[in-house]
Amino acid sequence: MSVAPSFRRAYSGRRVLITGGLGFIGSSLARRLVGLGARVTIVDSLIPEYGGNRRNLAGLGRRVNVHIADVRDWPRLPQLVKGQHYLFNLAGQTSHMDSMTDPQTDLDINCRAQLAILEACRVHNPGIRIVFASTRQIYGRPDYLPVDEHHPLRPVDVNGINKIAGESFHLLYARVHGIPATALRLTNTIGPGMRVKDARQTFVGIWIRSLVEGRPFEVWGGAQRRDFTYVDDAVEAFLLAASHPAAVGEVYNLGGPPPVTLQRLAELLVEINRGGRFTVREFPADRRKIDIGDFYADDRRIRRRLGWRPKVDLRTMLARTLAYYRRELKNYV
Amino acid sequence: MSVAPSFRRAYSGRRVLITGGLGFIGSSLARRLVGLGARVTIVDSLIPEYGGNRRNLAGLGRRVNVHIADVRDWPRLPQLVKGQHYLFNLAGQTSHMDSMTDPQTDLDINCRAQLAILEACRVHNPGIRIVFASTRQIYGRPDYLPVDEHHPLRPVDVNGINKIAGESFHLLYARVHGIPATALRLTNTIGPGMRVKDARQTFVGIWIRSLVEGRPFEVWGGAQRRDFTYVDDAVEAFLLAASHPAAVGEVYNLGGPPPVTLQRLAELLVEINRGGRFTVREFPADRRKIDIGDFYADDRRIRRRLGWRPKVDLRTMLARTLAYYRRELKNYV
Repeated sequence: MSVAPSFRRAYSGRRVLITGGLGFIGSSLARRLVGLGARVTIVDSLIPEYGGNRRNLAGLGRRVNVHIADVRDWPRLPQLVKGQHYLFNLAGQTSHMDSMTDPQTDLDINCRAQLAILEACRVHNPGIRIVFASTRQIYGRPDYLPVDEHHPLRPVDVNGINKIAGESFHLLYARVHGIPATALRLTNTIGPGMRVKDARQTFVGIWIRSLVEGRPFEVWGGAQRRDFTYVDDAVEAFLLAASHPAAVGEVYNLGGPPPVTLQRLAELLVEINRGGRFTVREFPADRRKIDIGDFYADDRRIRRRLGWRPKVDLRTMLARTLAYYRRELKNYV
Repeated sequence: MSVAPSFRRAYSGRRVLITGGLGFIGSSLARRLVGLGARVTIVDSLIPEYGGNRRNLAGLGRRVNVHIADVRDWPRLPQLVKGQHYLFNLAGQTSHMDSMTDPQTDLDINCRAQLAILEACRVHNPGIRIVFASTRQIYGRPDYLPVDEHHPLRPVDVNGINKIAGESFHLLYARVHGIPATALRLTNTIGPGMRVKDARQTFVGIWIRSLVEGRPFEVWGGAQRRDFTYVDDAVEAFLLAASHPAAVGEVYNLGGPPPVTLQRLAELLVEINRGGRFTVREFPADRRKIDIGDFYADDRRIRRRLGWRPKVDLRTMLARTLAYYRRELKNYV
């Protein structure tokens, strides 16, 4: 991906804080920002069930300042946000199932800690430019497709409820307290560094792990259609959102190449992998209750207003991701 | 208000828990339920800034079982919900301004504690019939009037965001876990027992106090239209919602007599009081940011589906309330 000169101007020499910075998207963002000459500080809890993995920063060495800390640890937040020009706020609990079995942990991370981060910014650094990682999960089962930003929010799980609150706090602090914040509603994001140990981040992770390990994988409800964003395109959206004045107080869907059925996605992965097997089965009962059915995003708002363009097609993103985990799987399981 | 025979059947001899039960609406509900022969337990924190006041239960003596406890005190929740047939869940932080100056407290009560209460019910008493006190505040500034339940939720303050989460948890637990819960979205509620010490519950409280004390009161933005529910009508709605099978998993607006401007409301109060003065002034800057403008509810859903009818007109509710505080003010300031 080319380095837009405006990104150099926006980020070179600037101090950037990334929560969840050892995670999949956070670490890709850190790597890109280091390349742009930014001074990057990362906060990550490295909780084993979450997305953080030191391997994601391989090769960056001391060019990134890493704090192993939990965003629920409020007393540490003021020191972390002070003096930063940007905050990419990606720390979160992402598993829908975990949010149903341990709802309070999801609330404490996705809702309560978000308010604490914003309060730390309001008191100690109200000019900080924030981009918050929100999620398509907040829409729930779509009334219509593709889903635009006007679609009602009717979450189907505790995770969706808490992410709405987290996103709403950011937009409220922008409006009432003048803190320049933007929210991006992410769909399935794919790429090197994604969690493949299990399905806690996206179901595609466990598919890729199974393929690389030569085991069959399960496709639940194969007729469902979903859309996918390549991680570099998501990173581009974060950098655009934080540097574009029109994005303050706004919320944008991210999308990507045209949606496909899960069956087709599985076939494509097997084809790219030159081998592999999967079985299609019904959704398990406990998952069905919180399943959202077909989903794909209408991302025209960010395309029009910020000029975002996803550049990586589905085949390429899957090929790059598979290639990465053929080399790196041992560091991710 | 007449005692519907179906209410006797639903509540006589039944065990009922009321959180926030020393508060304005909670205590009115407790009094009504005692009259219906229910076995009432109350939880209230009696935090001075909130609505709880022992005077609200005057005359009930030992006919109500009162626990002074905070719903944030999770270890106590299982014992409280066990064995109850009904839970009227009214504990909450109601001040919009306080939610902006101390947002974490609002979150802990209106969002986090609600999830803890529901988890206690899921684990220890999943058949408990719950009615949750939600608020019109979650709609934010109306796109259209009157506001029905389909209106988008765009809260203008931290309180609104947390109340959305609290309401959503109740509806989610109904849908996914089968816990029979209903949410009522209350508008301004008026009547004996309301907080009059300050404007933390409703601005009308401080108006009434000023009138009774013979001091002038301030009307902010007098042209705004609002609607009002008399407390007995609100109580009727709670009793209907908890005893009507069609209400499970549903959300209903409460309204009342036709809306009036604040200027007209103030004039009416002065007229009923046979004296008094007020000044109309601009909204203070810090309030304007979180003000919702005109609001009145479309309450046709609960009228149609549950047969609810607000019976007390505006003049009567104001007269009864003023009469109460002429006698009782010393116990409320």
